[in-house]
Amino acid sequence: MNNLGNFLTLSTFGESHGIAYGGIITNFPAGIEINFEEIQHQLDRRKPGQSSIVTQRKESDTVQFLSGTFEGKSTGTPIGFVIYNENQKSKDYEHIAAAYRPSHADFTYDQKFGIRDYRGGGKSSARETINWVAAGALAKHILPSTIEIHAYVSSVGDIFCMKPYQDLDFSKIESNDVRCPDEETAEKMISKIKEIKKEGNTIGGTITCVIKNLPIGIGEPVFLKLQAELAKAMLNINAAKGFEYGSGFCGATMTGKEHNDLFNEDFTTKTNLSGGIQGGISNGMDVYFRVAFKPIATILRPQESVDKDGNLVIVEGKGRHDPCVLPRAVPVVENLAAFVLADLFLMNQIRKI
Amino acid sequence: MNNLGNFLTLSTFGESHGIAYGGIITNFPAGIEINFEEIQHQLDRRKPGQSSIVTQRKESDTVQFLSGTFEGKSTGTPIGFVIYNENQKSKDYEHIAAAYRPSHADFTYDQKFGIRDYRGGGKSSARETINWVAAGALAKHILPSTIEIHAYVSSVGDIFCMKPYQDLDFSKIESNDVRCPDEETAEKMISKIKEIKKEGNTIGGTITCVIKNLPIGIGEPVFLKLQAELAKAMLNINAAKGFEYGSGFCGATMTGKEHNDLFNEDFTTKTNLSGGIQGGISNGMDVYFRVAFKPIATILRPQESVDKDGNLVIVEGKGRHDPCVLPRAVPVVENLAAFVLADLFLMNQIRKI
Amino acid sequence: MNNLGNFLTLSTFGESHGIAYGGIITNFPAGIEINFEEIQHQLDRRKPGQSSIVTQRKESDTVQFLSGTFEGKSTGTPIGFVIYNENQKSKDYEHIAAAYRPSHADFTYDQKFGIRDYRGGGKSSARETINWVAAGALAKHILPSTIEIHAYVSSVGDIFCMKPYQDLDFSKIESNDVRCPDEETAEKMISKIKEIKKEGNTIGGTITCVIKNLPIGIGEPVFLKLQAELAKAMLNINAAKGFEYGSGFCGATMTGKEHNDLFNEDFTTKTNLSGGIQGGISNGMDVYFRVAFKPIATILRPQESVDKDGNLVIVEGKGRHDPCVLPRAVPVVENLAAFVLADLFLMNQIRKI
Amino acid sequence: MNNLGNFLTLSTFGESHGIAYGGIITNFPAGIEINFEEIQHQLDRRKPGQSSIVTQRKESDTVQFLSGTFEGKSTGTPIGFVIYNENQKSKDYEHIAAAYRPSHADFTYDQKFGIRDYRGGGKSSARETINWVAAGALAKHILPSTIEIHAYVSSVGDIFCMKPYQDLDFSKIESNDVRCPDEETAEKMISKIKEIKKEGNTIGGTITCVIKNLPIGIGEPVFLKLQAELAKAMLNINAAKGFEYGSGFCGATMTGKEHNDLFNEDFTTKTNLSGGIQGGISNGMDVYFRVAFKPIATILRPQESVDKDGNLVIVEGKGRHDPCVLPRAVPVVENLAAFVLADLFLMNQIRKI
Repeated sequence: MNNLGNFLTLSTFGESHGIAYGGIITNFPAGIEINFEEIQHQLDRRKPGQSSIVTQRKESDTVQFLSGTFEGKSTGTPIGFVIYNENQKSKDYEHIAAAYRPSHADFTYDQKFGIRDYRGGGKSSARETINWVAAGALAKHILPSTIEIHAYVSSVGDIFCMKPYQDLDFSKIESNDVRCPDEETAEKMISKIKEIKKEGNTIGGTITCVIKNLPIGIGEPVFLKLQAELAKAMLNINAAKGFEYGSGFCGATMTGKEHNDLFNEDFTTKTNLSGGIQGGISNGMDVYFRVAFKPIATILRPQESVDKDGNLVIVEGKGRHDPCVLPRAVPVVENLAAFVLADLFLMNQIRKI
Repeated sequence: MNNLGNFLTLSTFGESHGIAYGGIITNFPAGIEINFEEIQHQLDRRKPGQSSIVTQRKESDTVQFLSGTFEGKSTGTPIGFVIYNENQKSKDYEHIAAAYRPSHADFTYDQKFGIRDYRGGGKSSARETINWVAAGALAKHILPSTIEIHAYVSSVGDIFCMKPYQDLDFSKIESNDVRCPDEETAEKMISKIKEIKKEGNTIGGTITCVIKNLPIGIGEPVFLKLQAELAKAMLNINAAKGFEYGSGFCGATMTGKEHNDLFNEDFTTKTNLSGGIQGGISNGMDVYFRVAFKPIATILRPQESVDKDGNLVIVEGKGRHDPCVLPRAVPVVENLAAFVLADLFLMNQIRKI
Repeated sequence: MNNLGNFLTLSTFGESHGIAYGGIITNFPAGIEINFEEIQHQLDRRKPGQSSIVTQRKESDTVQFLSGTFEGKSTGTPIGFVIYNENQKSKDYEHIAAAYRPSHADFTYDQKFGIRDYRGGGKSSARETINWVAAGALAKHILPSTIEIHAYVSSVGDIFCMKPYQDLDFSKIESNDVRCPDEETAEKMISKIKEIKKEGNTIGGTITCVIKNLPIGIGEPVFLKLQAELAKAMLNINAAKGFEYGSGFCGATMTGKEHNDLFNEDFTTKTNLSGGIQGGISNGMDVYFRVAFKPIATILRPQESVDKDGNLVIVEGKGRHDPCVLPRAVPVVENLAAFVLADLFLMNQIRKI
Repeated sequence: MNNLGNFLTLSTFGESHGIAYGGIITNFPAGIEINFEEIQHQLDRRKPGQSSIVTQRKESDTVQFLSGTFEGKSTGTPIGFVIYNENQKSKDYEHIAAAYRPSHADFTYDQKFGIRDYRGGGKSSARETINWVAAGALAKHILPSTIEIHAYVSSVGDIFCMKPYQDLDFSKIESNDVRCPDEETAEKMISKIKEIKKEGNTIGGTITCVIKNLPIGIGEPVFLKLQAELAKAMLNINAAKGFEYGSGFCGATMTGKEHNDLFNEDFTTKTNLSGGIQGGISNGMDVYFRVAFKPIATILRPQESVDKDGNLVIVEGKGRHDPCVLPRAVPVVENLAAFVLADLFLMNQIRKI
């Protein structure tokens, strides 16, 4: 219910300024050797303070696995993990104990629950995604090692990476601070973010994710279509506003004659507007999708707002915030996708017995 | 698991040329008076043969409720329903028993399951959405009667309804065959579809859905965010390629200063780029989203393809098909949204006890 | 949630005097040849009117499968089935529209739901078990064909089958009306039931179930222990009052030295007080359990009771009722056990990948 | 799936000699003041080393709540908790790294998973119940404060507490080491356990649990019957072998005339052989049930067994073990029941909206 995954499940907890984040993964198969360093590496890719274009908070974001492995291998029993919070400056948030920040969840949480941990946004903080990165990086161990999942920043504001993903060198994603593999575009994006940051403003963008070498057969016919599970996962990321796969919104302008992917004799297709999925099930071609992110709502400038009694107040972001969520969202998208794929991969194992 | 919904659940069955479709809804509250005529009316909006721009198949699509109601009211026990198939012409599909149609699920089903009911596309047929319309129209009874859910065709190919939804008269959605409330645009869309149909071709488009008067508090903080549940449901519709809500992909080009929705003193917001959702929870403003649909893959023209042994074959759509899925997808989007909302509405009832 | 099973799931609907019963099974693997006659045979074993010691109602209880199979084999997609009600005499129940029968669910349904289909007990009728027999008989196809599941009546009132199950010839279960394989005991049981019936009274008893050749490894460590899933399923049967497996309640009087099952060198055990399960997981020995059933509450004699306003009334069972639920419960226990086993069997397939 | 609960869910992790136990509870309502001391008190009732008749291990079993509360109240978001392991003596278990203890889960885990954390029994240890006590004690806060849940030891070996529960003073449960409220019987039980302990042996017994003042309407008609959910929970307790409620196995020997509970004019019943449940739903009378526990398999005496290669070996329990699980199982039964009731209580809130 409040889980990610259907057979392989992730349950999570944690608030921005609480004691810790953490989660439990169930139905992880036994006997898989776990690369704990790689999992921490994925968390390091997401953590704050990595470069000048992200928040300057310093947190080690160290994940500790508490169960479910023995002598380096999974035992088939639930895997618990915890990531303790550090370096919280709750005082930065006292001004919003009673005030509602525009385009934040302060008002809706208060209305829904009648109580709200306002410190750092509490449960509504995007820090929750730390759990997803840890769980996704773990789940990736279930997938065949040949699978590749590459996410990159494909636009920041109106600066778009115009090259199709086929023309990009994914090994360059980590070579710059914004995580766009096209160096020239990356530089423009970085300049744009620095400029926006100087204004105390924030900016949105998109992330493209490409999955290569996914086995055929992943995804289920009804209610667990591969694209639907990916969309659900991605739209749970805090600032996500949209999802499209294959031809996406552009495909909605086309005709069937243009859009149909004709087969080769080896069952690959000549084109791939379908985005590697037919009838909700992977067909062996690249799966690719794009996620839209709004600009972060916390800006370091005064904004008019209201308090819980409806009085006008001025709120102004304090503390250390990201001017652009995109660079740090790249490992979130990748690892979240890995979790979705691992879940559907396991389900597919028992389709033919 | 293979269900729609989390507390209010829908399990479904049925194939295009099987005996029947149907479903079971659990956790439907007791004592609600059911308007069975309205449910059939929603099915009638979706059924084939309504106009010259949709498929000319004739099926009554009559839903029969088999349990869970007594003297016109829900009893709180599972509600079963069945819709028998009629007027199937399975012979129209014999040519694809061994051949794979481009951009259809023939190949992926064969690979995944090793067996495939090829008649009418079997389980992969969009006829499955008949179950969702029936269940959604029933689920709508749970929601406060003040809620309005309006879907309409907002584009067909490159013909877009340029007016913002606020300027449209939703009462006109049903006044034309394409279900676009802007009469002028509707005419152009209809012409376009007729032209495409004449060519034996098909065309894509988008549907916009607006939800008015949704109570505050609908949606859950993690993994059941309102937008994520809507995205999951919509991406399960057969030809859907994308989902965006509020500012969507356009919002990804904006800055925080432009994008933030400032509060009024009554907690409404001056703008609504957020699309009525903050932190995954409805805030009382209009919720609106847009779904992209690809052109239907079945075109009435010869296409090169392969059979299951990898031999080149020519396939050509036979029988009665839609040139454009959009008009008939409008009630699907609306009723599917109703189901998602009813599910989250019930869950919200026990947030504060 | 309101399902049976965890990976292989059964959702059901139906009321005693409604239009039909039915269900949907999801995650049934593809490519399994279905023996539809065997499924109907299991329903026939449960149906009323088979002998003089059960209810004389006549219903064909014919199950119709509506989806999920093609040319006799499962397709991996949801399997829907329906069993239409026949021969209902709703008039027999008008006297309880406002009155509450002792030890029936009339009062609790009214209190819980505020509305009640009183005809034939509505949803609270044991006729619901018809769904479980159909689904269980289908699920049995998933299990290795070497598995044997034998249930039999082990006591009626104070008449007990004193022989241990190892000394019984299971092929004789169907050779008498009460379904006890020990002929001598069976005769006594039948006489007892006839005597009780003559008095318009009813009587309880127990059913023992033995599962042979179950593979090692079925059941999960936490919350899905094999015994817990069996207990849950069995306690859902309408008149069930208790469940024990292996040494059961008797084992609670023993010491560890007496109770421990010592190993043979081939990993079988010298004794089997554990009932074939260690740590919630099957160990390859026979699994056996016992279910207690109360006497049916409907007696054909006047009883003092109250109506919904708390007025004293006399209620008296009318119509055609079972004097003893046990003979017809035998196929329910067997097929329900088959469903539980098939569910856990599938889950176990992906423990080691 | 691998959860306890349906709407209110508990996911858990932990192994006996791993780093920690813990769990996550979702859908806990907001705004409930939490008595953390009472939760720790329940854990203290379960912890080792309390008296001379239980294991002499010393562990503080301190639970730490990591999320989901703010200023002492629940926030409606997932509640994570952790209990770190202390005082493990893993060396005590080296002798079973390759050997299988009789009537333990060593063999089944090895077969199922191909890998096993043998230290302290790993995942199969009853130490898992620490999670259930913590979660159950928390869940109890959801229930009306008038509900009372009293479990007590009703038999040890062949020493039975012969008084019906109505004649017992539940306030005396905690007044002796064995947790039987009948002082005279308690003394006999304690002597018996001491005698058994001296022999290095162990002994079984039963626990009776009585729930008073449960509101009417708790439990669902199909697959979530109150008794079935209780049975499932109880049969997950490590040494549990049986469950019965109301008249239980004894009721199986009775006739309908004897067994039916006649109504009083206030809808209470004159007798309560039904155990407070009709049709799976609470009727306002006391709910009572009994759970059978086998003798603990670890005895401090040499036993013949086999190693993983099938060689004969002698195994002998070392370290600190319970001679009788019953006294420490009392808080497990109570708090597990509380969790089950809280889950069904929440589900019942939305039956009539």
